[in-house]
Amino acid sequence: MTRFALTIEYDGRPFMGWQYQDHGPSVQGAIEDALRGITGEDALVHAAGRTDAGVHALEMRAHTEIEKDIAPFRLMEALNAHLRAVPVAILACEVVPDEWHARFSCIARHYVYRIVTRRAPLTFDKGLKWRVPHPLDADAMHAAAQILVGTHDFTTFRSVHCQSASPVKSLDRLDVVRDGDEIAIHASARSFLHHQVRSMVGCLSMVGRGQWSADDLRDALEAKDRARLGLNAPSDGLYFVRADYP
Amino acid sequence: MTRFALTIEYDGRPFMGWQYQDHGPSVQGAIEDALRGITGEDALVHAAGRTDAGVHALEMRAHTEIEKDIAPFRLMEALNAHLRAVPVAILACEVVPDEWHARFSCIARHYVYRIVTRRAPLTFDKGLKWRVPHPLDADAMHAAAQILVGTHDFTTFRSVHCQSASPVKSLDRLDVVRDGDEIAIHASARSFLHHQVRSMVGCLSMVGRGQWSADDLRDALEAKDRARLGLNAPSDGLYFVRADYP
Repeated sequence: MTRFALTIEYDGRPFMGWQYQDHGPSVQGAIEDALRGITGEDALVHAAGRTDAGVHALEMRAHTEIEKDIAPFRLMEALNAHLRAVPVAILACEVVPDEWHARFSCIARHYVYRIVTRRAPLTFDKGLKWRVPHPLDADAMHAAAQILVGTHDFTTFRSVHCQSASPVKSLDRLDVVRDGDEIAIHASARSFLHHQVRSMVGCLSMVGRGQWSADDLRDALEAKDRARLGLNAPSDGLYFVRADYP
Repeated sequence: MTRFALTIEYDGRPFMGWQYQDHGPSVQGAIEDALRGITGEDALVHAAGRTDAGVHALEMRAHTEIEKDIAPFRLMEALNAHLRAVPVAILACEVVPDEWHARFSCIARHYVYRIVTRRAPLTFDKGLKWRVPHPLDADAMHAAAQILVGTHDFTTFRSVHCQSASPVKSLDRLDVVRDGDEIAIHASARSFLHHQVRSMVGCLSMVGRGQWSADDLRDALEAKDRARLGLNAPSDGLYFVRADYP
């Protein structure tokens, strides 16, 4: 058996999420089908992060194990050929040691959330950014975001479906950067709770609109109560950017 | 009758082009249908440029004339509501003098052509950029592009279907700019021949790959012969950026 690490870009719009589902298309399922077509083996694919329906990835990392003797470059080319009909591309493929695990070896995960503030509907970016039809104060959002950086109980920002053992996480970075009518929110941590980025972004958008003060955000965090969440941002604007390994 | 100028963004992928066609979807047809739905009038829409099938626009300008008494902001909102099912968005709408003509008053047109050099298929950008699976020397492309700037007979770079009275055009700008694995080619002129930008980009890509020297490009231009064209780039990467008026 050879263990391969894959670097994967995908447009999440047509998928029910990363994880295999028997009732609809998934990124994992598409790649496992492609592997079966190439090798005849039922290889499982494990990712650094299991993104939700409609969430995108720029450089997701994943691994799989294959019996068939195949060079990494040929495997990448064959996967891309099999994946032609879906918006999933294998950007890199390499052989890794047997103990390398895309999820458990990962020491940092980076996401970006993309907002566009404009009145007109989106064309190119429909489903790829969150359109907010009113102005947002990005400076106020960035200042408030710093309240969330550090080690906290993020229960307020956690989906009720979250399977994480603990609601305590260390958020290393939450930067809000404006470029014209676009706002990018960069989030980095060793790991995130389910819906954490979207929940943080939703509340920051309320700060940006002036509906919440930074103190309201702090109160919501300290309440450790999901009912105190202001808003969960839609999946459209969320991208898994990359995963770091030692 | 009130004359309105529209600023229009569209994703060209589902359309047969700007111009109305009775056998398939067009951007002009979509906007004229929307106007009919709003006003009950059969208003024609005239654009600064009639883009081909699969060509996109960031800020196309167009005008129309309407009998119905309606404020520009309300017209824009109503158009966007009617256009919800297609990737066409009205970014701005204003009242203009009766002599203002989107096509004939236009004094400069700006296009950008987007290339991405990578081996993997595209996901988000499928149909929105031209994927070239080998490296391109953007500096060599930019240097060669300067041969085309100025007033020339562009017969080599003109579609056989071009309806322009003369093949002589003045190209004001042709800049090739690299950003990572992306190359943007910016073209500006008072007006362009049919397929001129795509034909120039196709030949520049041959320079970038080392198949053509700058002298080969000069020879092709000076031949004034469509048969000497190296390559016509696909519509995917072409965007009408904006139109200038006095």
